Amino acid sequence: MIKSIDSLITHVKNNEKKTIAVAAAEDYDVVTIVNECRKMNLADFILVGDKEKITEIANQNDIDLDSEIIDIKDHDLAAQKVVDLKRQNNAQVIMKGLLHTGTFLKAVLNKETGLNKGRLISQISIYDRIDGKGLQLLTDCVISIQPTLEQKKQIIENAVECARKLGIEKPKVAVLSALEIVNPDIPDTLDAAILSKMADRGQIKNCIVDGPFALDNALSIEAARHKNIKSEVAGDADILLVPNLVVGNVLTKALVFYAKMKVASAVMGVDAPVVMTSRTDTIENKILSIALALYLAN
Amino acid sequence: MIKSIDSLITHVKNNEKKTIAVAAAEDYDVVTIVNECRKMNLADFILVGDKEKITEIANQNDIDLDSEIIDIKDHDLAAQKVVDLKRQNNAQVIMKGLLHTGTFLKAVLNKETGLNKGRLISQISIYDRIDGKGLQLLTDCVISIQPTLEQKKQIIENAVECARKLGIEKPKVAVLSALEIVNPDIPDTLDAAILSKMADRGQIKNCIVDGPFALDNALSIEAARHKNIKSEVAGDADILLVPNLVVGNVLTKALVFYAKMKVASAVMGVDAPVVMTSRTDTIENKILSIALALYLAN
Repeated sequence: MIKSIDSLITHVKNNEKKTIAVAAAEDYDVVTIVNECRKMNLADFILVGDKEKITEIANQNDIDLDSEIIDIKDHDLAAQKVVDLKRQNNAQVIMKGLLHTGTFLKAVLNKETGLNKGRLISQISIYDRIDGKGLQLLTDCVISIQPTLEQKKQIIENAVECARKLGIEKPKVAVLSALEIVNPDIPDTLDAAILSKMADRGQIKNCIVDGPFALDNALSIEAARHKNIKSEVAGDADILLVPNLVVGNVLTKALVFYAKMKVASAVMGVDAPVVMTSRTDTIENKILSIALALYLAN
Repeated sequence: MIKSIDSLITHVKNNEKKTIAVAAAEDYDVVTIVNECRKMNLADFILVGDKEKITEIANQNDIDLDSEIIDIKDHDLAAQKVVDLKRQNNAQVIMKGLLHTGTFLKAVLNKETGLNKGRLISQISIYDRIDGKGLQLLTDCVISIQPTLEQKKQIIENAVECARKLGIEKPKVAVLSALEIVNPDIPDTLDAAILSKMADRGQIKNCIVDGPFALDNALSIEAARHKNIKSEVAGDADILLVPNLVVGNVLTKALVFYAKMKVASAVMGVDAPVVMTSRTDTIENKILSIALALYLAN
């Protein structure tokens, strides 16, 4: 079981070294992060992209890349190449470089040549719980704008799969809204009630789901007691499901910018660990996301 | 100008002492907080409610209340009484005790006997900016479930009024969404664009409005530069407008529970400062909300 976000790095270093294939690596941020990971001996890399530009960026910044470079300038072809490298097991993790997310995912999700499981893909932010009891997973902060009930079920399933890989055998899932009671004027609270019952009936497996919760009663048992909430999940949530993209996006950014927390990001629902960091992530958080993907590749 | 959330307390202590009328004060939390404020010499109190219960709670906890108690057990009448006390200037601030928010607000918003300005009421969370440059206002985290465009305009106007009272002459308003570009599939981003233009045309006064922003580019100039955003508001927001209740509620609770920040809460749009703390607020944050209301009473 992974007890803290920092211990991901140690865990990855203690396991067999893996290879990450990067699509469109001709980018200062990518070259820098590859260099950092190489210095930490975290992984090997295959850089797919504009070889001349990659080499130029490395030379200008006195970086000895020491990685294989495959010269493919076209972004569609570069994305397809990293998918192929994974399918042939020349790489265990794939990573998006300086190309559009849509171009990258088109190759990943291609039904014949891609890596899709036919499931919804979703993003998860992972960080230390405030009570020190291991990790917390927050989902989805990046992909689904306004998930339907069925999509929320799949987002939970993806998060449960991730939590179990991190050693949380039966994760507790809190479905978040603005308040902890069912309010017909707030559709999120209805979805929360329905998802709870679906888990009760075994329609969502390997987890305990409860909601609606306001954030405070999902995180704090005292706050839950103040509201007379009796729930196994209250104050003890391993997974937080947000009602939509804007809530997830604002919350994950609040963790980084207000709470200064270390946050790794995972993409689930794909038949390979995928790294898709944002340009505005801190270097530390980018490295944690890479370490998380390497961990999930085991 | 109020430079930090802590300086509210000093400012209030240095000014003429005011009186707070509390509706339904027969509650342990209320009696405790009144006692704390009395010890700090922050304000005088008139406690409206079940006199026997109030006295019993005080005695059981060795508290010398030293405040006027008006014996009214009925919640509707207690709420009306605190409103009357404010209208007669026997109190300058009113505070909700152990009664339903709806009951309390019915008396406050009564068109003939209440304190409403005929404007939308809205809530604002106030805390220190992460760059140390004074205060930031976050609105609305409590009242409007899904504000319309017109209501968002009024929520901005209420926040601008509050910001100006706190000494921010021409506040910069960031309209938040999940991303910084206009996306027809995300209606919040359309509202953000429209509100920006309304401010440009002078339809929202005394402020600069820009949006849509993701939270990171509203807070950090580096994050804004990464996205090539040119805006006076980027990285320098005084006011954050959230698209709806769940975003505001989750964000303000994240500030308290993850970032451990001190957060005061104000209610605007009423012709008197109103204190409506939540049962799950920390004592420190309750006192800050009271200090803020006392400050706004000047």
